[in-house]
Parts: sequence; structure tokens; C-alpha cells
Amino acid sequence: MFFQVIDILGTIAFAISGALVAMNKRMDPFGVLIIAFVTAVGGGTLRDVMIGIEPVSWMRNMTFVYVIISSAFFAVLFRKRINYLRKSLFLFDTIGISLYTVVGIETGLVAGLHPLICIAMGTMTACFGGVLRDILCNEIPVIFRKEIYATACILGGITYFLLLQFFEDRNILFVIVGVVVITIRLIAVRYKISLPTLYKKDEGIL
Amino acid sequence: MFFQVIDILGTIAFAISGALVAMNKRMDPFGVLIIAFVTAVGGGTLRDVMIGIEPVSWMRNMTFVYVIISSAFFAVLFRKRINYLRKSLFLFDTIGISLYTVVGIETGLVAGLHPLICIAMGTMTACFGGVLRDILCNEIPVIFRKEIYATACILGGITYFLLLQFFEDRNILFVIVGVVVITIRLIAVRYKISLPTLYKKDEGIL
Amino acid sequence: MFFQVIDILGTIAFAISGALVAMNKRMDPFGVLIIAFVTAVGGGTLRDVMIGIEPVSWMRNMTFVYVIISSAFFAVLFRKRINYLRKSLFLFDTIGISLYTVVGIETGLVAGLHPLICIAMGTMTACFGGVLRDILCNEIPVIFRKEIYATACILGGITYFLLLQFFEDRNILFVIVGVVVITIRLIAVRYKISLPTLYKKDEGIL
Repeated sequence: MFFQVIDILGTIAFAISGALVAMNKRMDPFGVLIIAFVTAVGGGTLRDVMIGIEPVSWMRNMTFVYVIISSAFFAVLFRKRINYLRKSLFLFDTIGISLYTVVGIETGLVAGLHPLICIAMGTMTACFGGVLRDILCNEIPVIFRKEIYATACILGGITYFLLLQFFEDRNILFVIVGVVVITIRLIAVRYKISLPTLYKKDEGIL
Repeated sequence: MFFQVIDILGTIAFAISGALVAMNKRMDPFGVLIIAFVTAVGGGTLRDVMIGIEPVSWMRNMTFVYVIISSAFFAVLFRKRINYLRKSLFLFDTIGISLYTVVGIETGLVAGLHPLICIAMGTMTACFGGVLRDILCNEIPVIFRKEIYATACILGGITYFLLLQFFEDRNILFVIVGVVVITIRLIAVRYKISLPTLYKKDEGIL
Repeated sequence: MFFQVIDILGTIAFAISGALVAMNKRMDPFGVLIIAFVTAVGGGTLRDVMIGIEPVSWMRNMTFVYVIISSAFFAVLFRKRINYLRKSLFLFDTIGISLYTVVGIETGLVAGLHPLICIAMGTMTACFGGVLRDILCNEIPVIFRKEIYATACILGGITYFLLLQFFEDRNILFVIVGVVVITIRLIAVRYKISLPTLYKKDEGIL
């Protein structure tokens, strides 16, 4: 129950973030809806397809479909006032990726995958909706260029496996990983910490 | 038989539209062939992969492979005269999306999916080949920005489920949905009706 | 054993090529790692997902995961001196696509697919990692515009099926196809042969 509420809050934040980017690109209502959808479920869809869980999760859970459609409508209707929700949305989003990370890891574990692959699945679940959103909007994905975002998920994933042996109660582990992810992201945003960009002039290798 | 002819006409229209966009981007013959292919089968491929129908449909039906390759060749050879076919191609394309919509819906029904998901699958089958074409050509997908295209498919899908209980003969339902999709698209193009674009300045939320 | 060494050399070349393109786009270390990964395993992942081999291959073989991560690190650390490796990397890459082509074809054969689809799977395995790399970097895929690259794979694939009946020992066939792909690519690069680009002004068809 507790986790489902978080999951829904995360989905709302992702869908609204997608709708806002789409409106910034002057899309029509259909485009806004699709981008909201892809942002919210894209990471989990990629994960499911690559692991072989099909039909993919969102097709079997109408709650999320309704939440995403409503969030997109909401974002469109209140697009001029949505800045007031800035902080709430940022918080939902941050809580959302922490949950998605753990969901992705556990999906990988159930499929019998190696811990490193599970961490990759967790990060993909949390981050690749945003990657697909940016590709559809014809931008280089923002998480490849700045922001401690994926990094927080990866560190959360490592924490998960380091502590796995000490916790019989998965719920506690869940919460600890969530706190790690959220803390790293909040600190990074608060102090404007980001990974350095690397640069190599194109000299035509390959 | 009747439906297979329509299906092939639709595939021809999609493949040629892909080849034309690729040539507009100054691609080489290989690029033109791939874009023709992706435009024609991309939507159905995404649908199959997300539902779990694998190997995906076009791999098991060589007719379509041959049709697509021939269409791409044709578009390349006659690229200077193809404008004369303008109206025929537009018609094939419109008939094509109406058929693809129904095919996508029925694929979803066979997989036991919720009506709303089935409509999404129908729209995806009809429209996402064009989305993938635009992504590969480094453009924001045109159906997210203008044209009543996806909207016609969605309304056709809703019609399908509203009338499903009244028709034992699926073929009649097929034709009615097709007429709905085609009519909406023709009217929209004739009277230059399009969805309004939405706009929200980027103020850095999330 | 011999083939595994080649496979690893090819993976190294692909991962480094991805890392270099990512750095040219001023990405951060996370972006560089992801692009390296996608370039190396993207083609095989698409192939596996479309055929229905899931979890996809690289999730079940940690060797490649370690090789890719190490290659990305290496490319980042030595990015200023990597030009000295120009020729070796080009050679690894060329040997890599010849092997990937055969691997893709044989994967298709095992799945019982038509020879034409098998050739497509071989070409996809060899070339679509680079296509995904370019899409994530917001470029029109380079293999759609110039270079005899996919063409070499396609001709290698055709050679495979022309000679299939004459060879009981698959290893010899493997080597012949490899030599064909490598020779075509080397000749094309040496003499700067490329496919002509096609052009068709956009006159608004469809």
C-alpha cells in the first residue's frame, strides 16, 4: 500500500515532466500524451522487453494508464500555474526514481540475473523513460550530459547488494536504498554537484 | 483476400513514404531501404515486441519483405516522377492506417488486453512506423506536431469497441471502423483541420 | 576460442568507438559508459528482442559486460593518445562486424527464419549498435549516409547462403564470409568508395 502510493506519485511526476517537455517543443495534445506516457513507462518497458516479461507491465495494470492520462491532462490544463508545484514535483520525481530503482533490481533478481545486470535494470527502469522522452523530442538525453541522476540510482543499487545479506526483511532494505538515492540526488541538486563532462575532438577514428 | 490487398497497398504507401523522407535527407541506397522498412513494419514490430509475439510478424511473412524492397526500389527509380502518384499514395496511406488500426486492436484482443490498451496497440501499429522513421531521420515525429492522424486511429478504435457488441460478423465492423478512420482523415486534410499545438516555456521544473 | 578472441576484440572496438563519439558530444562519464554499451551490444539486443531470445544475450554473459566497462574506462583515460591506436581500432572494428554478421545469421537460422531475414539479422547485429549510438547522440546514423559498411555485411550474408550447401564444416564457411566482409570494407575505405546518396526534394507527398 505504502509502496503503491509512492509508485503512483513517481508516475505522476514522470508523466508531468514528459508533458512539460513536450509542450516546450510545441507539440499537439496527442504528442503531449505520448511523451507523458513514454516518460512514465519507457524505462520499465525497455527492462521488461529485454528480460522477456511480456505483455509488458503497464499493459496489465490499468491504474497506471489512468494516472498517466490524468497527469497529462492536468499538466496541459494548468500549464501556466504549474511552476507553483515545482518543489513537489521535484520531490515526487526523486522519490519515484528511488522506488523504480528497487523495482528494477528486484525484477532482475526474479529473472535470475547477475547483480551487476540487476543494478543496470534498476537504473534503466528509473532513468530510461527520460532518455526516450529526450530522443522523441530530438534532444541529446539530459542525463548523459549533466545532473547526478543515474549516478544516484547506481549507488543505490550497489547499496542494495552490499546490504542484501544483512536484511531478511526486504522492506527495510527498500527504505534504506530509497534514502540513499534520495539523499544523493538532493545533495547534488542543493550544492549543484554534477559529473564533469569529458571531451575528445573528433579526429575521425573509425 | 480483400483485406490482404489493402494490407499490401498500405505497406506500399508506408514504404514509399519512408523512402521519400530518406532521400530528402540525402541518404544512400542502404539508408533508403532501411527507412522504407522501418516505416512499413516499425509500428507492428513495436506492438509485437511489447505484447510478446516473437519472432515479430514480418519475419514470418516474406510477402511483405518483397513488397517493401520493391517499393523502395520503385521510389528510388521514379523519384523524379513520383509526384504524379501523390493522390494515390495519400489514399493508400489513409486506407493503410485504417487497416493497421484494426489489425493492432485485434492483436491486442487475442492477447487478452484491456480495450484501452487495444486501442493504444491499434494506434501504435498505424502510427509508430512513421515515428521511428522521423527519429532515424533526426526529426521530431511529425504526428506529434500536426495532422489529424493518430487522432483518426484513436477515434476509429473507440468506434470499434462501442460497436463490438452489435456485430457478430467482424468483417462488417472492420469496414465500419475503416470508414470512420478514412473519413476523419480525409475531412481533416481537406479542411486543413489540425490539433492546436500547446506551449509552455521551459522554466526548468524537474 | 579463436572466435571468442575475435568477438572480444570486436566488442572492444565498438565500445571504444561509442565512447569516443560520446566524448565528442561532451557527455559525462555515465553518458560515455551508456553509449559505449549501446554501441557494443545494441545490434545484438535488437536482434534478440525481435526474435524472442530473452533475457537478451549480453545479460547472460558477464565477460562482455566487463570488457565493455573496461574499454570505456580505457577510452576515457587515454582519450588524448587514442589516435595512435587508430589503425588497430579500425581493424578490430572491421573484424568485429564480420564476426557479428555471421553470429546474427546463425542466430536467425537457429530460430528457423528465412535466409533473407537471416541476412537482415546478421546486418542488424553488426550495424545497429552504431545506429543506436548515433540516435542517442542526436545524429542521423552515419551508415545511412556514407561508408560501405552495411553493404559489406549484406554481401557477406549472401556469400554465406550461396556457399552453405558446399561446406559441411561451418568454421571454414565462417572464415570465408569473414574474409569477404573484411576485404570489401578494406577496399572501400582504401579507395574511398561509397554508395551514392540519393536526393528527392520534399514536395509534400503524404
